[in-house]
Amino acid sequence: MKLADRTKIVPPSYTIGISTKVSEMNENGRDVINLSVGEPDFNVPEKAKEAIVKALENNKTKYDKVPGLIDLRKAICEKLKIENGIEYTPDDIVVSNGAKQAIMNVLLAILNPGDEVIVPVPYWTSYPEIIKLSEAEPVIVYPEDTKEYRITVNDIKKAMTEKTKMLMFNNPSNPSGTVYTKEEVKEIAEFCLENNIWILSDEIYERFCFEGEFVSTASISEEVKKITVVVNGLSKSAAMTGLRIGYTASTKEVASAISVMQGHLTSHPSTISQWGACAALTECREEINAQLDVYRQRRALMLAKLDEMNNITYLEPNGAFYVMVNFGAYKDKIKYDKSFSLALCEKMLEEAEVAVVPGIAFGLDDYVRIAYTVSAENLEKGLERIEKFIKTL
Amino acid sequence: MKLADRTKIVPPSYTIGISTKVSEMNENGRDVINLSVGEPDFNVPEKAKEAIVKALENNKTKYDKVPGLIDLRKAICEKLKIENGIEYTPDDIVVSNGAKQAIMNVLLAILNPGDEVIVPVPYWTSYPEIIKLSEAEPVIVYPEDTKEYRITVNDIKKAMTEKTKMLMFNNPSNPSGTVYTKEEVKEIAEFCLENNIWILSDEIYERFCFEGEFVSTASISEEVKKITVVVNGLSKSAAMTGLRIGYTASTKEVASAISVMQGHLTSHPSTISQWGACAALTECREEINAQLDVYRQRRALMLAKLDEMNNITYLEPNGAFYVMVNFGAYKDKIKYDKSFSLALCEKMLEEAEVAVVPGIAFGLDDYVRIAYTVSAENLEKGLERIEKFIKTL
Repeated sequence: MKLADRTKIVPPSYTIGISTKVSEMNENGRDVINLSVGEPDFNVPEKAKEAIVKALENNKTKYDKVPGLIDLRKAICEKLKIENGIEYTPDDIVVSNGAKQAIMNVLLAILNPGDEVIVPVPYWTSYPEIIKLSEAEPVIVYPEDTKEYRITVNDIKKAMTEKTKMLMFNNPSNPSGTVYTKEEVKEIAEFCLENNIWILSDEIYERFCFEGEFVSTASISEEVKKITVVVNGLSKSAAMTGLRIGYTASTKEVASAISVMQGHLTSHPSTISQWGACAALTECREEINAQLDVYRQRRALMLAKLDEMNNITYLEPNGAFYVMVNFGAYKDKIKYDKSFSLALCEKMLEEAEVAVVPGIAFGLDDYVRIAYTVSAENLEKGLERIEKFIKTL
Repeated sequence: MKLADRTKIVPPSYTIGISTKVSEMNENGRDVINLSVGEPDFNVPEKAKEAIVKALENNKTKYDKVPGLIDLRKAICEKLKIENGIEYTPDDIVVSNGAKQAIMNVLLAILNPGDEVIVPVPYWTSYPEIIKLSEAEPVIVYPEDTKEYRITVNDIKKAMTEKTKMLMFNNPSNPSGTVYTKEEVKEIAEFCLENNIWILSDEIYERFCFEGEFVSTASISEEVKKITVVVNGLSKSAAMTGLRIGYTASTKEVASAISVMQGHLTSHPSTISQWGACAALTECREEINAQLDVYRQRRALMLAKLDEMNNITYLEPNGAFYVMVNFGAYKDKIKYDKSFSLALCEKMLEEAEVAVVPGIAFGLDDYVRIAYTVSAENLEKGLERIEKFIKTL
């Protein structure tokens, strides 16, 4: 008996595929350095762990409100106020099983079948597929600026049709590391406002901002705030990936629609994960800031190493914890069928035992994404392996 | 700017609405006895709690495989083998953020827009809405048997069209408490097999079987197993509602499609919840069995009390932890507009301070659903309030 057609439309995520392959290689005794994963190598902050244990002791393990624990939603409002200068109330917040679910909820709550969503290149690999699963249409847009791939109003204008209903705006960007200036955010947001385009502002990498200053889209103005759904979470900032806590901040009306969707998809995420998230937001600032210093050092190491390599360039990684490296100069050194970056990454994994993500996963096939979410030692070792590997090409 | 049309199609769940109202009343200092909730009043078993604390200590808080921890999937296979006599491998299992997500995953993986799903009355309140959200069509079927509402092949035949692709089979049934005999399951399953109809066998109340013997649909035969997706979870059996762990068991092909859906909707559920579920399955049998004895006593108390009330009848509740009580004799004593049961329940909540769920939520407007998920003392008090209340009508 046949399965749903949508199982064909939606391919498994590239990044998850690589993780699986790396696990298999490591299980077979090989020593792979994994620079592919968008996951902090830190642990859940101690006070967040304590909060989880306390929640368990106090049996806070019952059904709770679909949009999330009131304490957590209050803590999120406080965070948005203090860190981003935006006023929200708990009714504006919905807590989800990871930012991924937050995004899916938003799409289901706002988009009708056939609505178009503008997705700037390079994009987080799951955007186009999540959009398709919501029955809307991803419209992939290559920015004119091929030096930094910063999306501009000009790019949006070219991609816009009467069906355009949303812009996926990822700031700081995974994979490019681009951090938009306040002026850039303002220009884009006001254009969307004039043209009735919702902004899904994916700010999950907000805390990883090493050059320039992060500006939350919803902070631009009251009017912009109304057309913006902020997506954020604790996975990256508090190293809580496996605990799966993301959230949205929006108008009450949108939040209510999101909550209805979530009520039918999954109900709320794990209450004990939510208690951990609550403590991470309210009690773990110092521990998290100390982690950021480590990322900063790794980033410097990464850039120094990349600068030594021949024939490669990279996008200026002001935020997030990735560098998009252009290996296009090696295109005629590799046999490939459909995708250069996929072939390059497979060869690199097999021959150099370094895992990175092929740029095709993000819409840029000349590139690969290298994450600095491992120790400085492993990062250095990994980059040396890559350097040696490209010399063999 | 407008939201998606599907936000209009999908109304918020009745049961969640009542919980919210009860919380508000209790916050205002009223003493509501809540017999509406499908949630055990027990706590997470001690060894499950210990496993969660241990997982935290060992930093098992990272991204893991989309279909769930391998240890948990192995434990689920072991459970299905020992308790249900069915052989599965971990590749056949997908662990989800609650059985609700498991159901949504199955629908998305199997159904195309416009496919019809047969939903026997009385049904779990969320089935029709989850089906609509997956773009398929719920076909509500009233069984000929209005004494016990047991669905039969005859009922399915009448509802069947060429678009019929799935049967929602809930055994033991929420809300009716019906437990199907092996012969009944076999007859229904073999009919589905002959007619290429998938069976979503929702077995979340499996352990709550007080009369007769529970038979898992997939255990009928190898052929039936192939067309069946078993949905189960830990929320009810291990009192882990808030930790949100459900799962499916199916063929590898279906499991793989389900996993792709889940990979885009949410990724895996909280890893620490999963470690708790793993211990609940492997180490907590005695504790859970002791809970079942308590439910057994409450059920006896409930039925004795109901037998004393005037002009009511109820469906024989052999399983789950609810009784569907027919208040139809009071229909002309209550002013109502669209729904008798809704008006009755609202009046009962306001005047008698007892919360129950209106039968309309399950497709039977003469009924209300009373849960025995509270202490014997509160159950008795609640039923006495109801008895007094109906005398005032």
